[in-house]
Amino acid sequence: MAVGLKPPGTLLQVSGVALAAVSAGIYARRRPDLCLMAFAPGTTVAAVFTSNVFCAAPVQVARSHLSAASPRYCLINAGNANAGTGRKGVEDAIAVCRAAAAHGGCAENEVLPFSTGVIGEFLPVDAIRSALLALHGRLSEDGWMDCARAIMTTDTVAKGVSRRIEIAGVPVTVTGIAKGAGMIHPRMATLLAFLATDAPLDTPDLRDILRGAVAASFNRITVDGDTSTNDAVLLAATSKARVPATVVHGRPYLEAMEKTVGEVCLELAQAVVRDGEGATKFITVRVEQGANEDECAKVAEAVAGSPLVKTAFYASDPNWGRILAAVGRAGLERLDGSAVRIYLGNVCIVEGGCRAAAYTEAAGKEIMSREEIVVRILLGRGTAAATVWTCDLSHDYVKINAEYRS
Amino acid sequence: MAVGLKPPGTLLQVSGVALAAVSAGIYARRRPDLCLMAFAPGTTVAAVFTSNVFCAAPVQVARSHLSAASPRYCLINAGNANAGTGRKGVEDAIAVCRAAAAHGGCAENEVLPFSTGVIGEFLPVDAIRSALLALHGRLSEDGWMDCARAIMTTDTVAKGVSRRIEIAGVPVTVTGIAKGAGMIHPRMATLLAFLATDAPLDTPDLRDILRGAVAASFNRITVDGDTSTNDAVLLAATSKARVPATVVHGRPYLEAMEKTVGEVCLELAQAVVRDGEGATKFITVRVEQGANEDECAKVAEAVAGSPLVKTAFYASDPNWGRILAAVGRAGLERLDGSAVRIYLGNVCIVEGGCRAAAYTEAAGKEIMSREEIVVRILLGRGTAAATVWTCDLSHDYVKINAEYRS
Repeated sequence: MAVGLKPPGTLLQVSGVALAAVSAGIYARRRPDLCLMAFAPGTTVAAVFTSNVFCAAPVQVARSHLSAASPRYCLINAGNANAGTGRKGVEDAIAVCRAAAAHGGCAENEVLPFSTGVIGEFLPVDAIRSALLALHGRLSEDGWMDCARAIMTTDTVAKGVSRRIEIAGVPVTVTGIAKGAGMIHPRMATLLAFLATDAPLDTPDLRDILRGAVAASFNRITVDGDTSTNDAVLLAATSKARVPATVVHGRPYLEAMEKTVGEVCLELAQAVVRDGEGATKFITVRVEQGANEDECAKVAEAVAGSPLVKTAFYASDPNWGRILAAVGRAGLERLDGSAVRIYLGNVCIVEGGCRAAAYTEAAGKEIMSREEIVVRILLGRGTAAATVWTCDLSHDYVKINAEYRS
Repeated sequence: MAVGLKPPGTLLQVSGVALAAVSAGIYARRRPDLCLMAFAPGTTVAAVFTSNVFCAAPVQVARSHLSAASPRYCLINAGNANAGTGRKGVEDAIAVCRAAAAHGGCAENEVLPFSTGVIGEFLPVDAIRSALLALHGRLSEDGWMDCARAIMTTDTVAKGVSRRIEIAGVPVTVTGIAKGAGMIHPRMATLLAFLATDAPLDTPDLRDILRGAVAASFNRITVDGDTSTNDAVLLAATSKARVPATVVHGRPYLEAMEKTVGEVCLELAQAVVRDGEGATKFITVRVEQGANEDECAKVAEAVAGSPLVKTAFYASDPNWGRILAAVGRAGLERLDGSAVRIYLGNVCIVEGGCRAAAYTEAAGKEIMSREEIVVRILLGRGTAAATVWTCDLSHDYVKINAEYRS
């Protein structure tokens, strides 16, 4: 089902990061479902988490551990979200951290837990504990693809991206893996992404880079408008790449890292949309000529989030009235409708608040029948812009979310 | 498809309001599609309109006419929304008002135009003009049901409600008709409702009563989160009921009218949801114990608007994790998740931020399999409450919105 998405070819190793995946039997049908990422001493780590009040137990514990210590390990399981599990859920998340720490020879708060899968069931702590010895034994810098596969729940394609750049003649690598927000099982949720680089970055810089990258990627995608209880994106920097000290912290260096991390996040975020539930089309909604970026994002989200717009895309129906109505209800103050222009691909469909004079249904239909579609909305009141990526709303979305029972 | 909804039996006449419906041939397959409501001299009128920036031409004209004169007629057509039609759309709306005014012997701004149907096509002005003579000739106080049927677009059931109360021994009537926001045709939109009473009410009181009633009814329903370009609700008061002057304007009188108009609006609004696109269930989301009504409404809207929650209702799946996640992302500041309780019917499903101890899947499933379901969410931080009504998200919603082409 994934739209224009293939599994990654090879994922580049990041010096100082070792990974492993094994089956802990969390899924009844055995498959790798437990991952460990180990960071070399001196690695800096930043993370962003879901804003949902009912954040899952592992999110609460990971937040707390990250604020108290420098992480040495991430322990990630699929198949069980450990969300909606109350105090016992938190105790369970701490218990698996403690067990992983004992194997790894570190403190329990140097382990960050992540979970994805069914909401409302208790974590199989013993099963996870029993798998830890094998997991630690398999750690390898070559483990990225294994982990990309093991964190999948209902994703149909494993998601991973690597970039290598040169800084002052030194090669620097950024590799990331992600799993989608495909809430395909009725009680599944969660977008998770783990990125690492061998570049030297101190924690404040790392945080800034991650926040900026997430704002322009994972926070600019929508499949169905729901924010899950387990969402988390992590970025680690091992400092193993021997970038000259004179270069590090300079503006050009930070900008190069921002750009590269941003590209990896964006490609991963787009992969999540391409593999969205029931997606048959990949849609880019770009809003330009706004007074500021916020209002552009607001309009883009209103259009990308409208079930009526999304079903029209599914039907390849150039239904410009629905796009116009979504722009009109986005809540922008004093928006002059007569200044708004809307394009489907390079075809102008709306100008002056009504159908463009030269527009023909055939031209619109041709664009709408494509698998990848760009909608451009020009607000005519400034120079800011923002882009949101989404997929269409198909029969399979309802089928997947209503009918599938384990 | 409508959930627990039958056509109204009889609709009570409102002295001073005459109505008629004829076919103007706006639909290819002939059916009544043009309505006229005539108000006796001295009738006061209030209306609320869509907040969509791209409001339809008739909305622009009706707003302008209402602010300049006392309406004598409403001219309503189905089959064409006259939206997204630019300056010509406005000229067309004025032209049909002018023609209706000529027949009715009033000024053109004493006619309010309303349209519902296809977006982006020009109004068939000549066809409407040609039908006006017959329309005026048929005006009768008995015309409510004919109009309830003629304003339907893709509604499956005509919607009308009457209430009669006694004030100081004098019978007072409120009757209203509505059509749904069923955007079943890919380019259709619009919720329209017309209410009238024979009670004496001056314009400021009428406005207050209508605003209050709409806030608690039409503004508290959601089918798919889209606000159309044509939405309008109108309330007329003819003063024909001989309520003693000593009573009129007194607090008890205004409260009685508020209550009665509120009931009519609420029943009409719920009828719109019951007849929502593809609806198989009618869902009441009631949020209690909030710090204020706004935050209660915010939570209720997040739950009622979540595609994941709505597909779970469709599937009769007691998926409390999705409801919990929707509450958690509603954006309430400092919400204590552990104080939140959630009920399906009278079954407590969530307490302390996780599954209630006594909850069983079988008990949840029993409630979820019903056609009418009440979800109660107790926030545990105040005494305010708000209710939102919605329907489920079914296969037919996608089918209706994606596949139907005229």
